[in-house]
Amino acid sequence: MGQRPARKHSPPPCFVCSGVLNGTDRCTDDHCRQNNVKVPSGRGPAAGGRRQGGQPEQSPGAGEGGGGAGQQSGAAPGSIPEEDCGKLYNSCAVFNPDGEMILKHRKIHLFDINVPGKIRFQESETLSPGSSLSTFDTPFCKVGVGICYDMRFAELAQLYGRKGCQLLVYPGAFNMTTGPAHWELLQRARAVDNQVFVATASPARDEAASYVAWGHSSVVNPWGEVISKAGAEETIIYADIDLQYLADIRQQIPITSQRRDDLYAVTSLQGESG
Amino acid sequence: MGQRPARKHSPPPCFVCSGVLNGTDRCTDDHCRQNNVKVPSGRGPAAGGRRQGGQPEQSPGAGEGGGGAGQQSGAAPGSIPEEDCGKLYNSCAVFNPDGEMILKHRKIHLFDINVPGKIRFQESETLSPGSSLSTFDTPFCKVGVGICYDMRFAELAQLYGRKGCQLLVYPGAFNMTTGPAHWELLQRARAVDNQVFVATASPARDEAASYVAWGHSSVVNPWGEVISKAGAEETIIYADIDLQYLADIRQQIPITSQRRDDLYAVTSLQGESG
Repeated sequence: MGQRPARKHSPPPCFVCSGVLNGTDRCTDDHCRQNNVKVPSGRGPAAGGRRQGGQPEQSPGAGEGGGGAGQQSGAAPGSIPEEDCGKLYNSCAVFNPDGEMILKHRKIHLFDINVPGKIRFQESETLSPGSSLSTFDTPFCKVGVGICYDMRFAELAQLYGRKGCQLLVYPGAFNMTTGPAHWELLQRARAVDNQVFVATASPARDEAASYVAWGHSSVVNPWGEVISKAGAEETIIYADIDLQYLADIRQQIPITSQRRDDLYAVTSLQGESG
Repeated sequence: MGQRPARKHSPPPCFVCSGVLNGTDRCTDDHCRQNNVKVPSGRGPAAGGRRQGGQPEQSPGAGEGGGGAGQQSGAAPGSIPEEDCGKLYNSCAVFNPDGEMILKHRKIHLFDINVPGKIRFQESETLSPGSSLSTFDTPFCKVGVGICYDMRFAELAQLYGRKGCQLLVYPGAFNMTTGPAHWELLQRARAVDNQVFVATASPARDEAASYVAWGHSSVVNPWGEVISKAGAEETIIYADIDLQYLADIRQQIPITSQRRDDLYAVTSLQGESG
């Protein structure tokens, strides 16, 4: 979980299932064909590895939309550009231990920022937004997925919490302005407000890149404590997702049961992936 | 705004309008009579002053329900126990510069906490909950009011933001467990998530009290920065509520306009005070 050391792969296999590409940009695997998986030019596993190694992420999926290691499977995956019917999405694929893709979350909030003199980034000029909430089940707990800028929208986390998620995962790449200001704050806020664990995976920082990521992949517990945190460099971080601790927190400060459902509601208006 | 030095008043006037009580617990002022204002025993302005001076707040309005200076008028008032039709509420009254009560917020989330070996506090054993959101207009901006534990419920702040509030005010008295863990975090979360100013007013700390308040009245700006903060002792803090700065933040990171209203909604289901 989190940032991993750079690895070289040549020739690159499919970024989704590590299957053989046969010299094309389409994987021959059944699952990948069904899911219309196309490997963007130069975006195989080696691209993810290079990116983690500190080279710039030039894709439109960068900014607060950029994720960590696109090719990694597991509970804290990254995000990559995905083409579908002529549109590009910033997407995060989730795989089970058998290597099967069980979820694909398309970033639903596209990151447009304009801090004069500091940064301008208009993700919506290139990408299309997803339109589904995304959760998946594991033998341990239900997990909700968002990508980067999605984390700024509390409603997504609130709905995931109400759907029974106990862990929220956000691949993301905050920048050198928003990172120090909000990266940790937002994770802690989502964790405390919903009494869930929150895990983030960021690319490592490359000061020479056109887009410099803040880094600092983290895991936050339901009390709002950062229980594991990377620096700006490549590393691997680990944390125990202690669901008994989560249950204890919910019992001690029972906000999940003391909401005033007669006064307000947070509701989902559309479908859910997973 | 915030904690103020203790003051002695004898005999205590009405805590709402500073009018004459004529030796009873009912004020003779028209406004107070219309609002059924009753001064609880020993809860005149002097009580508020003593409490700020560090003596314990024994009322059922303490805990994460206790507020700052009940008798103070202005944008950051405190809260006191209010009796109405045989029920007790934890209420915050807001006054205009002419001394007229323009809003009364009754705490809608009653604080029940049970952290084994650390603290047990069941506000709902004594108090009744309010059932209205509470906003009021000023010549500067619209203001939303919550009391202490109300701050843990993000929905309230979200609705205030959607109603056009640019400042949220929470009198509150977090304790020595929840204070260091969450007092500042929650204020910063509400500020960043809704891009509003947040002001809190806490009683000063009295280590000898049965309920020891964390203190640390604060003002947080829409970027999530603490721009003014008290310590644990009595003091007065000041901050500029710069609405142009708020507008700039909303323009730079446009989360208030980029919500996915087609995917989720935060809705109010009942009435609003003010």
